[in-house]
Amino acid sequence: MKIGFDGMGGDHGPSQTVKGAVDALGLIKGEIVIYGNEALIASELAKYSYDQSRISIVPTTEVVENDDKPVKAIKSKEDSSMVVGLKALRKKEIDAFVSAGNTGALLAGGLLKVGRIKGISRPALCTIYPTMEGASVLVDAGANAECKPRNLIEFAYMGSLYAEKVIGIQNPKVALANIGAEETKGTPLYIETHQMLKETDLNFVGNVEGRDIPSGKVDVIVADGFTGNIILKLTEGVAMQIVTGLKRQIMKNTLGKIGGLLLKRNLSDFKKMLDYTEYGGAPLLGVNGLVVKAHGSSNAKAFMNALKYAEIGVKSGLVDAIRDKVATFPKVETATDGEEEA
Amino acid sequence: MKIGFDGMGGDHGPSQTVKGAVDALGLIKGEIVIYGNEALIASELAKYSYDQSRISIVPTTEVVENDDKPVKAIKSKEDSSMVVGLKALRKKEIDAFVSAGNTGALLAGGLLKVGRIKGISRPALCTIYPTMEGASVLVDAGANAECKPRNLIEFAYMGSLYAEKVIGIQNPKVALANIGAEETKGTPLYIETHQMLKETDLNFVGNVEGRDIPSGKVDVIVADGFTGNIILKLTEGVAMQIVTGLKRQIMKNTLGKIGGLLLKRNLSDFKKMLDYTEYGGAPLLGVNGLVVKAHGSSNAKAFMNALKYAEIGVKSGLVDAIRDKVATFPKVETATDGEEEA
Repeated sequence: MKIGFDGMGGDHGPSQTVKGAVDALGLIKGEIVIYGNEALIASELAKYSYDQSRISIVPTTEVVENDDKPVKAIKSKEDSSMVVGLKALRKKEIDAFVSAGNTGALLAGGLLKVGRIKGISRPALCTIYPTMEGASVLVDAGANAECKPRNLIEFAYMGSLYAEKVIGIQNPKVALANIGAEETKGTPLYIETHQMLKETDLNFVGNVEGRDIPSGKVDVIVADGFTGNIILKLTEGVAMQIVTGLKRQIMKNTLGKIGGLLLKRNLSDFKKMLDYTEYGGAPLLGVNGLVVKAHGSSNAKAFMNALKYAEIGVKSGLVDAIRDKVATFPKVETATDGEEEA
Repeated sequence: MKIGFDGMGGDHGPSQTVKGAVDALGLIKGEIVIYGNEALIASELAKYSYDQSRISIVPTTEVVENDDKPVKAIKSKEDSSMVVGLKALRKKEIDAFVSAGNTGALLAGGLLKVGRIKGISRPALCTIYPTMEGASVLVDAGANAECKPRNLIEFAYMGSLYAEKVIGIQNPKVALANIGAEETKGTPLYIETHQMLKETDLNFVGNVEGRDIPSGKVDVIVADGFTGNIILKLTEGVAMQIVTGLKRQIMKNTLGKIGGLLLKRNLSDFKKMLDYTEYGGAPLLGVNGLVVKAHGSSNAKAFMNALKYAEIGVKSGLVDAIRDKVATFPKVETATDGEEEA
């Protein structure tokens, strides 16, 4: 088992990617192949003592930057850590590829360099949505702003397989994000998708309203990428604002500070529940290999967990399971079939 | 000044509506006209001592229920508290109408019984979005699931006027909810709307991502009703889950309980910041009169505040300001013009 890793991706550069890789060795069984600037990565690796047989470097000379145009970057930066890694995934030199680089470029690269699974019209970003009850899965988290019902049905299947195989949820409850419980609610896209989901063999439990999304009542939240991205980022934003507000209240006066001190341990458990770095990565499902997008602001811990879940994903046979499931799909006639992506 | 009030609306019935009306007398200068079952409302009123010259009852015999079909209910329940109240608003017997009843019915009733302002293609629900920095305005909060750019431009103008006139924000910063800061982000609806907003005389500051919506950085958040409803309800849901989780951590052990006790006062300030009952109502903007939708689960305090803001809305001349602004709109040719609503 070899997990490929973009050593140059993310806001904090190789100091965090390399530390994440070293720390991940304690959690995974396979090897890690780091793509990137050899001198930089080697000098970071030199700071740690670790089993050197399990981390190797594939030197690359270019970097896809955050402000690069996605498709152009993938086509022109042939020797970037991202492109070289994705090509290695296609050639099966590695079993998965994790990157915190430019999201648009990674999505375009997944399509152009790894290729989509036959029968999947649009690959989607599938992310863990932490709730007080554990973890739900949100798909699409932002790969496809505009969707057709067929796309959402595929997202539902892929999200359900991810919840089952990687998170370990038996018979995951699949729900459609919507503005009301009734099946007539929402835009035509959502009304039609609701009807189609009822006909599938998924454990479809109906619509889930915004108020219930964070409750953990459902396991898989299906949405178009515009809505999914708003859900994901808004949840982070609200949690961040509340935690900041709470800190401010604790620091307001002496009683508050003492109270905060007594609560310190309990509050750290609480923060952990809200912590997005616990899972660390969102797979791009629907391509011919496991491509995992790590958060741009990932620290070493987030990378460590992204690498851990990448290995779980490979071991679970997720990509093959999606391929097998798609093969059973009734042939749906929609305009998206054969449409040009990226 | 007379504020009409649906005494039968909301999950808790006349016990909370009547208490809210009595409490509101201390905050407003005008009179309150309660529409509903005379016996029920009179018996609730009898529990309080208040200036009887300032609250009157208009007896009605029917109630629009939450599970009634909106348009059908408005057309058939002619003697319901909601329909009688809306008709009184149209006839200018009252200056505003507040109801916590069936949202769809109130929207349909606003259109059918009060009528929309000439030049407005779609009225929209405009709600206060509480942030740690104060209050932002979100429009549309759910009246129109499917929108065209023209609708969103109108929402932006109406939201900006509401922020300025009712909340008192000078030169409100107007932003478009979106999945990225760049103007090329989002669906075609959002890309086109962004370009059109740039051409307006609004203080348009660009896109606002989910992560930044709760920060209070922008004053008016413009979205289609599907996205706006998800934003509003998800924010409530995340806040509710976090507050529940926090309570659980405080009650977990003795140290936590003592810490919680010391923090009690500070935490109550904190809860107040998250409290949706502080504003209590969302006006349906774009109709020929001030119709305010109160939250279905409103308690007396929420009703009191909804009545207070209704009076502020009337005094501010909000509806006339919208009418004047629309008159200056360049004639935009879209398919929505003259389209059938409700």
